[in-house]
Amino acid sequence: MTGQASRSLRVALLGCGVVGSAVARLLTEHADDMRARVGAPLEIVGIAVRRAGRDRSATGVDAALFTTDADDLVTRADVVVEVIGGIEPARSLILRAMEHGASVVTANKALLAEDGPTLYAAAARHGVDLYYEAAVAGAIPLLRPLRESLAGDEVHQVLGIVNGTTNYVLDKMDRTGASFADALEQAQALGYAEADPTADVEGFDAAAKAAILASLAFHSRVAGKDVHREGITDVTAADVAAAREMDSVIKLLAICERLDGGISVRVHPAMIPRSHPLAGVGDAYNAVFVEADAAGQLMFYGRGAGGDPTASAVLGDIVAVAQHRVAGGLGPGESSYADLPVRPMGDALTRYHISLDVADRPGVLAKVASAFADHGVSIETVRQRLVPADDERPESGANLVVVTHTATDAALSATVASLRDLDVVRDVTSVMRVEGS
Amino acid sequence: MTGQASRSLRVALLGCGVVGSAVARLLTEHADDMRARVGAPLEIVGIAVRRAGRDRSATGVDAALFTTDADDLVTRADVVVEVIGGIEPARSLILRAMEHGASVVTANKALLAEDGPTLYAAAARHGVDLYYEAAVAGAIPLLRPLRESLAGDEVHQVLGIVNGTTNYVLDKMDRTGASFADALEQAQALGYAEADPTADVEGFDAAAKAAILASLAFHSRVAGKDVHREGITDVTAADVAAAREMDSVIKLLAICERLDGGISVRVHPAMIPRSHPLAGVGDAYNAVFVEADAAGQLMFYGRGAGGDPTASAVLGDIVAVAQHRVAGGLGPGESSYADLPVRPMGDALTRYHISLDVADRPGVLAKVASAFADHGVSIETVRQRLVPADDERPESGANLVVVTHTATDAALSATVASLRDLDVVRDVTSVMRVEGS
Repeated sequence: MTGQASRSLRVALLGCGVVGSAVARLLTEHADDMRARVGAPLEIVGIAVRRAGRDRSATGVDAALFTTDADDLVTRADVVVEVIGGIEPARSLILRAMEHGASVVTANKALLAEDGPTLYAAAARHGVDLYYEAAVAGAIPLLRPLRESLAGDEVHQVLGIVNGTTNYVLDKMDRTGASFADALEQAQALGYAEADPTADVEGFDAAAKAAILASLAFHSRVAGKDVHREGITDVTAADVAAAREMDSVIKLLAICERLDGGISVRVHPAMIPRSHPLAGVGDAYNAVFVEADAAGQLMFYGRGAGGDPTASAVLGDIVAVAQHRVAGGLGPGESSYADLPVRPMGDALTRYHISLDVADRPGVLAKVASAFADHGVSIETVRQRLVPADDERPESGANLVVVTHTATDAALSATVASLRDLDVVRDVTSVMRVEGS
Repeated sequence: MTGQASRSLRVALLGCGVVGSAVARLLTEHADDMRARVGAPLEIVGIAVRRAGRDRSATGVDAALFTTDADDLVTRADVVVEVIGGIEPARSLILRAMEHGASVVTANKALLAEDGPTLYAAAARHGVDLYYEAAVAGAIPLLRPLRESLAGDEVHQVLGIVNGTTNYVLDKMDRTGASFADALEQAQALGYAEADPTADVEGFDAAAKAAILASLAFHSRVAGKDVHREGITDVTAADVAAAREMDSVIKLLAICERLDGGISVRVHPAMIPRSHPLAGVGDAYNAVFVEADAAGQLMFYGRGAGGDPTASAVLGDIVAVAQHRVAGGLGPGESSYADLPVRPMGDALTRYHISLDVADRPGVLAKVASAFADHGVSIETVRQRLVPADDERPESGANLVVVTHTATDAALSATVASLRDLDVVRDVTSVMRVEGS
């Protein structure tokens, strides 16, 4: 114990956007509560903003506290809260804050996914805390449970719906039969999707979060670039209907799991059975499903974005690092001691749901089945439905739906490539991974 | 920092039943992992058991470590893990351990609900940690998120399914239409319910957990005896069918919420809409729904009981208190600084779903409606269905289903009493509170 309880703890805020202003407001509104929990008052010593002179009275913070000199501000704080986002200047400011002995709370998933190890190492070197609960799944207390509550357990798998925009779009497609384009347009109209939705719909945001989740769950260094990433732009209304027929639903999942000698970290759309706890997660909500050796199945559900929910997570972290300061303890420290290698996507074990448009001829099923067998992929179910000839298709055909048993992604995608080459296969109409069963 | 990292931390286990033996096994299996997380090895220095001489080789623990002298054992440990259960000797042993400077991890909900404040005060006095994640909702990381992640937020309401036995019984009744007695019998046959199911079905277990949840969520001292408690023994197949017609489901809920100038803490069966995240929690699973000011709606889901899930939570706590020991920090400290009074059940704000068997006469609805109005209770919906005369009932009648708006439980129960006295009311066939909307 360093006996600092008598003086206040100096908090510096970097950024005053939607999250930053919510943090400033909550720190002020809950000042008495926070003091009781921390054992010392928290004092905002400055808020770094890009431009001076704007009206920021809504934050309830004394106008004199706003500054454009973030480099100076980080040297005069015990706790630095970074809610600027992006790589620079966030990274330089966080490193500078740590050099000057400040603990850091950040919500910056992009930076953690790109260069987390540099930050963790700096925190360890300077003996300060680095907390980032808000970086994944907003308000949902998730990183602390993974890091602390399951500290004596062994996590096997993490399946997360960690991007609200894509969940809103897929939920809309499921409930209304809308196309991807129409559902996205509605999401944009309601403010659930940006004008440029690339980061969300192409899975970049989810991949950054998957990297952070995998790092924590498996105590290994995983960067965003190590994550296999597929977005939802190719998910069609037909895919969604096919899932529905399977009593399943399509979700964009962040998947982190142990594989022999390593881990698999990937983001892609997948079918999950409606009976799975994640299937009921609608709208823009987030949820993360964790399977651990002793604990069994766990799920965490809540709001993944928004100013107040994200600020709630930031405040929880501020209290934690402030308590450590007052009590003189240490934070969670270096968490990548296991350092398992990230295995390539081809090694991931998964199952495929494949819809084929095939010719209506004897021997078709045998040829299709051989393509699976040739790659060592075994078939769980096949459903066949005749499609009579019509104006568009003068020849009658059949719709073949194959669901495989578990195999490597490499074997499954090679099977699909072979199917495309078969003369009896007119089209591969849908390929979707199946998870959560 | 006290620089104890070089020596091992001495762990004493009190109790070696289902949970205790799982803790011993996991501590041994994950020894390397735990050392990496804690920064020092954990060493089991003894396991206190009631009877010597039994074969305990399945725990993988050296037989020489078993002892019947718990009083001695607790004086030679850094961390004491209490998984005996019940009030005594657990309480005396925990207090003795703290006096001798040990931090304590316990899964003992009954003791915490009966005499938590004595334990919290002793921990504070001796400067040691008291952790009890496993006491509520088994493996689900719940207390740490409530205490730490939401430390900068304000919790409004906690709605929990915290008893697996009753959830299994109610889920069975919902899915099969079984009576309470039949569903309970099946639960007993499958080992989900004890031969004497009183603690579960009468809500005693849930009430103890509600007291712990309320204490943490509202930083107040709440004992099990402060909790209004109603079990599920009176829930009929007709109640379940009535809920189904409302597109709702009946769950035994532990409810903790802020009321003007205090808090309401209660356990009773209630209808919740099927669209509510808690409605899909089936079998013997537990889940806790939390609504906080900034974070919004959160839910935590997982296994509430069982040796391994409970042991997982215990191990997370062992790591936390061990980390504090190694780093020299302090635990979460005194958490009842707010100390809100627990308000009587009559002050709780809720809604009622009431089914009435009434006479088929002009003016009946007016009389019934007046009974509500007389108590200041406003009606949300009324549905009336004629019941023709038959052999049992020579007179035709009507079934009246009333759902109220929110009112105090006192006003609502007074209304029901008045309804029973009305000459036009032949029977009050079902009264059920409605939550989660």
